[in-house]
Amino acid sequence: MGLVVQKYGGSSVADSERIKNVAQRIVERKRAGDQVVSVVSAMGDTTDELIDLAGEITDNPPKREYDMLISTGEQVSVALLAMAINELGEDVISLTGHQVGIITDDLHSKAKILEIESDRLEEELAKDKIVIVAGFQGVTIDNDITTLGRGGSDTTAVALAKAIDAEVCEIYTDVDGVYTADPRIVENARKLNDISYGEMLELASLGAEVLHPRSVEIAKEYNIKLAVRSSFNDSKGTYIKEVSELEKVNVVSGVTCNKDEVKFTLLGVPDKPGIASKVFSELAEVGINVDMIIQNIHYNDVNDITFTIDHEDFEQAHSILEELKDKLNYRELISDVNVAKVSIVGAGMSTNPGVAARMFEALGRGEVNIEMISTSEIKVSCLIEENEADQAVEAIHNEFELDEE
Amino acid sequence: MGLVVQKYGGSSVADSERIKNVAQRIVERKRAGDQVVSVVSAMGDTTDELIDLAGEITDNPPKREYDMLISTGEQVSVALLAMAINELGEDVISLTGHQVGIITDDLHSKAKILEIESDRLEEELAKDKIVIVAGFQGVTIDNDITTLGRGGSDTTAVALAKAIDAEVCEIYTDVDGVYTADPRIVENARKLNDISYGEMLELASLGAEVLHPRSVEIAKEYNIKLAVRSSFNDSKGTYIKEVSELEKVNVVSGVTCNKDEVKFTLLGVPDKPGIASKVFSELAEVGINVDMIIQNIHYNDVNDITFTIDHEDFEQAHSILEELKDKLNYRELISDVNVAKVSIVGAGMSTNPGVAARMFEALGRGEVNIEMISTSEIKVSCLIEENEADQAVEAIHNEFELDEE
Repeated sequence: MGLVVQKYGGSSVADSERIKNVAQRIVERKRAGDQVVSVVSAMGDTTDELIDLAGEITDNPPKREYDMLISTGEQVSVALLAMAINELGEDVISLTGHQVGIITDDLHSKAKILEIESDRLEEELAKDKIVIVAGFQGVTIDNDITTLGRGGSDTTAVALAKAIDAEVCEIYTDVDGVYTADPRIVENARKLNDISYGEMLELASLGAEVLHPRSVEIAKEYNIKLAVRSSFNDSKGTYIKEVSELEKVNVVSGVTCNKDEVKFTLLGVPDKPGIASKVFSELAEVGINVDMIIQNIHYNDVNDITFTIDHEDFEQAHSILEELKDKLNYRELISDVNVAKVSIVGAGMSTNPGVAARMFEALGRGEVNIEMISTSEIKVSCLIEENEADQAVEAIHNEFELDEE
Repeated sequence: MGLVVQKYGGSSVADSERIKNVAQRIVERKRAGDQVVSVVSAMGDTTDELIDLAGEITDNPPKREYDMLISTGEQVSVALLAMAINELGEDVISLTGHQVGIITDDLHSKAKILEIESDRLEEELAKDKIVIVAGFQGVTIDNDITTLGRGGSDTTAVALAKAIDAEVCEIYTDVDGVYTADPRIVENARKLNDISYGEMLELASLGAEVLHPRSVEIAKEYNIKLAVRSSFNDSKGTYIKEVSELEKVNVVSGVTCNKDEVKFTLLGVPDKPGIASKVFSELAEVGINVDMIIQNIHYNDVNDITFTIDHEDFEQAHSILEELKDKLNYRELISDVNVAKVSIVGAGMSTNPGVAARMFEALGRGEVNIEMISTSEIKVSCLIEENEADQAVEAIHNEFELDEE
């Protein structure tokens, strides 16, 4: 008998029929002899509807109250799923983030899990119950409800899998697995049977919407076997493993694109020590993640600093940067929301020189201008204009012949 | 500076405009110098919509999961109201039943408050914050979410008023106060300026939808001044006080009608000791309240037992009674859902003989058949056919000239 943690996303539980379908899958798994903990997101558009409700009241909801509001979405879906499983005759209990003991920091709307007090969960499993857990949410040590930000239910699932030492963590979604590129953009994109934690981490961070990077990080750190599978069919999906366990190490496993970044440039920043760190520490303090950074040294001891962040932090970052203008004495703030980051990822890249050059050539042939570049051992990213993103992804996919196994 | 607990019902927060209106009222009260704790129900039809969602999944949701589901309604409204108050520039925090420390028994969907651990609430008040509390909900000592059943937000408000020793508990609703009869049925019904706890308790128990009986009980027990007021105007409302504090003690203060009862008759029950208690103890065990009871002794040592309960418990009670058939060896079970209970209530009734007789005469003149009668010191109730209920209420209202002060 195995212990499995599953996660079902919002589209898998979008309406009562789909909830019944998920209930059936869970019950079958249980009857096959496994112990099942299922983490569930809010139904379909529920979260957006709640955000709209808040929007009717204010443009700037306090984040604590925002979390109080949107965490109800998952509470509704776990209760309904538990009802559906009960209807099929299995013992089941639903638990909120608070009840399952998910303790987070107090960075509301993008909180991080600090620990999981899994006593209650293990108690319920010991009673042989199926346990349904509200994803995306936790509580601070002061008992205030938090949410984990985008993709938080994945993080909940992996963190639970670690806490209760599950054999595998299965992420159920509306796609069959991880592809070489977004099939909506590249027609001949191919499903990968397996991929390394490192590659998946890069893909997730780069905007492939299948898994949340934090969840992959946790899985990698604790060596939790992850699977991405469809909740609508029985396809094998994609397994995420150690490099050493892969069928084959690819030079390039996939190409991905993130259109949710925005670019800021601070022009004419005095070249004194501590200026750049001041900018980035103020952003970090409110939980804004900076992605790509370039600093050009000019004449007259002034610099230009260019960097990118998530679109959702745009307004907050903008006002922080405006406020810093007098303190830092920079000349001008420029922003550009029409940018996209295309990236290639491959575990075999570090031992195969010339991969980045081939990517740049493919972009050059398509007359795509590269604004920023960043690289790691297993990825190369280029910031380009947003309206050229799809053709760029396709050109790179063709260059590396990713449609072929 | 006073400490006031307010309660706003679902119609007072039915949409974002009304939520803003309530926020404005609360902020004005705060700025006038009072400390304000506001208990809020779910927005308008939210609870019914959630119940419909459950209905798409199953006809028999486990009550624990049902509470998990519908308690989200209040969590949404408190978060939105807190956002609206924050938007007006006042410090505010919303708290769920769990966060505010409302501990209940585990009778899900009709739980009773056992105690309130009000530390958090008092902490937030000490920080000079407005506190918005989710009504209708609590948690068991095992941390499972419970709901208090119909009118539970009133109970939350009064119990909180007691816990933090508030000066007054104001129940805001969509009517101006307590009337001599339902104005939708009796055109010339008159608003009462004040009424005694005892009368209000009877009225509440008898189906006047203004206040929940449990809330009046608690207010009476701890001598908490209650007011029923409209959230749409500044009318003075109705104050609920000790009899000794009333402007005038009425022989009959009001006439009310409850169409939510159903009648069961067990025919041919063997006349042995313990039979009746068996029936009623089995119902009590699952939290079903029995209201009126009649037992007729027949020849041949068999009885007929007739009693009424809430309509919402009909199905559960029906199956319990069916199951008891063999054990108790009764002959037949009859039920009637088309009944209504009309009642008169008056603190001066006990010292004015002949009141019940006048009520029966008024019903007789209208050719309304009386099926059951029950009385207390300050009320007389008659069970009649449901389709005669409205005319019966009007006839009684006229008989006692309740439109005149």
